[in-house]
Amino acid sequence: CVITVGWFAKPTTNTTNQIASSKYLREFLDEMQSDQIREHLRKFTRLPHLAGTEQNLRYAEQIRKEWLEFGLDSVEMVPYDVLLSYPNKSQPNYISIVDQLGSEVFNTSLAEPVPAGYEDVSNIVPPYSAFSAKGQPEGDLVYVNYGRTEDFFQLEREMGINVTGKIVIVRYGKIFRGNKVKNAMLAGAKGIIMFSDPADYWAAGVQPYPDGWNLPGGGAQRGNVLNLNGAGDPLTPGYPAKEYTYRFSLEDAVGLPKIPVHPIGFHDAIHLLKNMGGPIPPNNWKGALNVSYKIGPGFTDDFRSQKVRMNIHTNNQLTRIYNVIGRIRGALEPDRYVILGGHRDAWVFGGIDPMSGAAVVHETVRSAGRLLSKGWRPRRTLIFASWDAEEFGLQGSTEWAEDNAKLLQERAVAYINADSAIEGMYTLRVDCTPSLHTLVYDITKQVTSPEEGEEGVSLYDSWHKRDNWTNDRDAPRINKLGSGSDFEAYFIRLGIAAGRARYTKNKRYSSYPVYHSVYETFEIVERFYDPSFKRLRAVAQVRGGLIFQLADSLLLPLDVNQYADSLRKYAKSIAQLAQRHPEQMKMYEVSFDSLFSAVENFTIAARDFHERLQTLNREEHVIFAPSSHNKYAGESFPGIYDALFDIENSADPEKAWEEVKRQISIAAFTVHSTAMTLTPPA
Amino acid sequence: CVITVGWFAKPTTNTTNQIASSKYLREFLDEMQSDQIREHLRKFTRLPHLAGTEQNLRYAEQIRKEWLEFGLDSVEMVPYDVLLSYPNKSQPNYISIVDQLGSEVFNTSLAEPVPAGYEDVSNIVPPYSAFSAKGQPEGDLVYVNYGRTEDFFQLEREMGINVTGKIVIVRYGKIFRGNKVKNAMLAGAKGIIMFSDPADYWAAGVQPYPDGWNLPGGGAQRGNVLNLNGAGDPLTPGYPAKEYTYRFSLEDAVGLPKIPVHPIGFHDAIHLLKNMGGPIPPNNWKGALNVSYKIGPGFTDDFRSQKVRMNIHTNNQLTRIYNVIGRIRGALEPDRYVILGGHRDAWVFGGIDPMSGAAVVHETVRSAGRLLSKGWRPRRTLIFASWDAEEFGLQGSTEWAEDNAKLLQERAVAYINADSAIEGMYTLRVDCTPSLHTLVYDITKQVTSPEEGEEGVSLYDSWHKRDNWTNDRDAPRINKLGSGSDFEAYFIRLGIAAGRARYTKNKRYSSYPVYHSVYETFEIVERFYDPSFKRLRAVAQVRGGLIFQLADSLLLPLDVNQYADSLRKYAKSIAQLAQRHPEQMKMYEVSFDSLFSAVENFTIAARDFHERLQTLNREEHVIFAPSSHNKYAGESFPGIYDALFDIENSADPEKAWEEVKRQISIAAFTVHSTAMTLTPPA
Repeated sequence: CVITVGWFAKPTTNTTNQIASSKYLREFLDEMQSDQIREHLRKFTRLPHLAGTEQNLRYAEQIRKEWLEFGLDSVEMVPYDVLLSYPNKSQPNYISIVDQLGSEVFNTSLAEPVPAGYEDVSNIVPPYSAFSAKGQPEGDLVYVNYGRTEDFFQLEREMGINVTGKIVIVRYGKIFRGNKVKNAMLAGAKGIIMFSDPADYWAAGVQPYPDGWNLPGGGAQRGNVLNLNGAGDPLTPGYPAKEYTYRFSLEDAVGLPKIPVHPIGFHDAIHLLKNMGGPIPPNNWKGALNVSYKIGPGFTDDFRSQKVRMNIHTNNQLTRIYNVIGRIRGALEPDRYVILGGHRDAWVFGGIDPMSGAAVVHETVRSAGRLLSKGWRPRRTLIFASWDAEEFGLQGSTEWAEDNAKLLQERAVAYINADSAIEGMYTLRVDCTPSLHTLVYDITKQVTSPEEGEEGVSLYDSWHKRDNWTNDRDAPRINKLGSGSDFEAYFIRLGIAAGRARYTKNKRYSSYPVYHSVYETFEIVERFYDPSFKRLRAVAQVRGGLIFQLADSLLLPLDVNQYADSLRKYAKSIAQLAQRHPEQMKMYEVSFDSLFSAVENFTIAARDFHERLQTLNREEHVIFAPSSHNKYAGESFPGIYDALFDIENSADPEKAWEEVKRQISIAAFTVHSTAMTLTPPA
Repeated sequence: CVITVGWFAKPTTNTTNQIASSKYLREFLDEMQSDQIREHLRKFTRLPHLAGTEQNLRYAEQIRKEWLEFGLDSVEMVPYDVLLSYPNKSQPNYISIVDQLGSEVFNTSLAEPVPAGYEDVSNIVPPYSAFSAKGQPEGDLVYVNYGRTEDFFQLEREMGINVTGKIVIVRYGKIFRGNKVKNAMLAGAKGIIMFSDPADYWAAGVQPYPDGWNLPGGGAQRGNVLNLNGAGDPLTPGYPAKEYTYRFSLEDAVGLPKIPVHPIGFHDAIHLLKNMGGPIPPNNWKGALNVSYKIGPGFTDDFRSQKVRMNIHTNNQLTRIYNVIGRIRGALEPDRYVILGGHRDAWVFGGIDPMSGAAVVHETVRSAGRLLSKGWRPRRTLIFASWDAEEFGLQGSTEWAEDNAKLLQERAVAYINADSAIEGMYTLRVDCTPSLHTLVYDITKQVTSPEEGEEGVSLYDSWHKRDNWTNDRDAPRINKLGSGSDFEAYFIRLGIAAGRARYTKNKRYSSYPVYHSVYETFEIVERFYDPSFKRLRAVAQVRGGLIFQLADSLLLPLDVNQYADSLRKYAKSIAQLAQRHPEQMKMYEVSFDSLFSAVENFTIAARDFHERLQTLNREEHVIFAPSSHNKYAGESFPGIYDALFDIENSADPEKAWEEVKRQISIAAFTVHSTAMTLTPPA
């Protein structure tokens, strides 16, 4: 994913505009207030608002109304009819241990203990795995650590244990839960149970909620278990889920698991694990519960007649969802779009995920509205989005991207994501395309650190001190964009420059402990994560500053040189990865030369491009910026990575290495093509 | 495939520019000369110049040199390494009748009789089917008319004849030869022979070449027999065939037939057909040879011990080809491209195909160069292309489109094709996207009829008189664009507005009689098709006028209203086609409402769009025109058509109708999306 900036230059005068723009940036950042963010968060976390429910529609309408009051030019509700998944209200999901007579001698809990103050709230959905298959499989348990590919390999190859016809139990963490389910299916399991282990969801020295921010033993992580590969609505891949859209049958739907899946907390997990038999696990398979983590299959001799039975009655259901789309029309380039989007739907209250992000978007819109009332109008069009059904597979954002693909590929300049704004109390975390690195540093220098005792210190310096880049650079670390939130369709499918920023923790747990539990409340933010709401304000200023500069700078603030540097870094690293197999590289004539040559090409084109921008007379020119559409491939070469990964597993190494060569060639072509867009025409 | 025109409007003054532009158009058209075209054609048809041969490279170098002399800003040779196919020089291809001892009692000719004046020419490739599989299959013949799907159906279902293990013989015509081969393969044949029947390649009252323009009995039609589906080089689908590109193995190559294929003339065909046994064919299976056209399998009782043996030794070969790409840089919109492209490679001399077209491009370039020397420069960039290896599956043009896909999707405004400029002596024939209809009419009104006795009559009027549109319009008929020449990648894959124009015959033979034979010489054009070279000049003026206006008009001369009209017409016609199955339509709930509603949407957007253009103050505005990229689907709905076609054949009607519904939904979405690009932003 790379950017291009157009070749047109038309007479005008710009100096005054640009001085005004930078004055307005300051006002825009200063207008954002901690108390306002607190209020927004309070307002939108009082009730559960799962995607597809009435309450989530109400919040959508409220957001629409308030964005219009804040002063946006237009705000519309955009509905889609997509496949969601809910527990059956009259047949609860649970897991039993059954004795030889079939009697249930233990049942997992049907719900999490509700936190104080929310006892009277209805419509709290119990923990479940959305899109689980229905069924009541019964059998022996096998423990497979995190359920990763390497865990199943180790199980099958080193321990000689086959899970065909068994029920697998794995701990949450390390990889997306949908991949655990896929791995279990591929291994032949007939069901999978996922639990939150304290080793992964419990910080030392911290109390469980409500006395601290750790996950109580009765808490469990909800979440979808799809393997969508970016498809959005499982029934309408590639197309928006509108009234006229053809829908696949459920059998042809994308990514639905074929086996029952269920999540539990660690109190319940202890009961399932404690009597397990079979081999003692390797140390890195042991969590922090007071059990032996034996692998199984099944229970020890004393309990050998007991089996585990899953009781899953979750239903797939075609459901209407609503995005809220607000706009500020650009003054000079109305057909260039800068998008700030984040989801609104929550598993329960969404105190952190996603409303800490939605509150930040709300404050950004309010601040932009204030500027509009003072006469400011951005050069390019700003689009604000409140996505629905992110938790069910990024559905709202993906359907809108599919609906508007043609326009967005022509017109979108950048997409900034606004999911949870906080997941820890340590420092800033930014994941973005390399072309945004320079802008991120620029903006964070204009924002103040939210930390106590750092008055007058910039966010940049505070962040830099806490998270310096690894050896190679003296700058705060920025990560590459992965997937798993609403930027996916924009970045990976449409190739739009994209980024995300949030406040993060120091140690890297799989996620914050109460993630997707009922304990994600307003209070957990107010009491523990950000009592002053200054951290959320800092995130608002970063996200807001990014979209402000992207929408209002004379020249698009995208740094192609930085992109070239990253390409080189990634090319080196992927070539090194391949060099783990030097003999096969030689035998199959695998070479990375074409990729390095393309990167070199790109580097020269990027340098020339920025030189031309330098010598351009900015007093006299307006630069029109075509959008940044390029297929994702140039950055960290995931195609090559996946092909290399398959080397280990393939039964036919020649074929696997052919695929590596094909992927290198595709990557080289993509980098070459993108370099061409940086070169002047004719 | 639809166009969009941008939303930017920036102050400038244009009136003088546009007056100058229209004066230059006149000069540009008047500069084109019949004698010059004759000379160009003479020069480039002296020697055979098959793709991949030295002579075709020499012509490329000559074109490059002359285009530079004519005054283009730049001309480059662009090589690709692609899979071509040639006969084995030491083992000729032929077909035998063998007796029961295996002796060859009849062999087809190894070459066509060489026309007078060319006796000493070497490197005339004998008639062959490029990309035929090698092999020497032997068996009974079955005659299957034109080898269409419906012919094979009739053979199998009505006549009860199975061709498994047989050699099929079909006549050329009606459909692309590659599809005949595919149909024969699907039916189980182990070889296929194609012959030119006088019913299809012989005009009444006309002598065979050199005394007239009919195909001599010893002439045969060369041609590739691929099923590429637009892939270009069979080894590098989706990517340019460059040095760094990964190539498929031959087994994985796209579209190669698995059975031997060979073309023959009708003198040879008589020998194969005359003793055939089996049923008498239906009347519409009978050609114009003095044989009974019996179906087979095999010969009559008297000859039943004789079999047919094919001897095919054609080789696939990775070969370097060369496009020639010339440019005139646009003065105001250098990054908007208008392309005039046609191929240079010929099966032998290419007197008609393609050099009548290449001579026209040459003259267009010469005329544009003259204008440049007088101070003119087009508003947008003009690109002239001499494609290589069109005859081997549109390879040169497709590889360049793949190489430059990213740039072309952003920047290309229109593509005008320049294959053979003449195929008859009757009138003009134009195939183009509906958005170009208005421009085509406009230009043809500014060109004079080349017909004797029509001095002072416009080409438009002459054409109108000879080929009025069917009932619904009083205007010359324009056809929709099909496929089969170099516009394919640009129009169908990249979605660029495209068109083609040539002089054509009155009655619609499958092609002109000497098509792809050695008799396509300079002399056949000079003696019969266009002795004054005025017809070729008229075609040059049409093709040239189109690219001139597309490159130099203030507003892009693309008519979206016309596009809307065509969409409605095509939507009606495809819905009527489906209505042949009213009961199934009802049972499977198939509705075209969504498509009609999308077309209605589009119609309104188009009307509003043109209204805004009307009220725009042209004195004060420059209109920037984004390119026209839209995936092909909106126009005549080929996806729905194919799905309806499959209804007849499918074993599972429910599944087949589901596919129809899916295709209707895709078409509706495409039309909706394109309408969005016509609507102002935000």
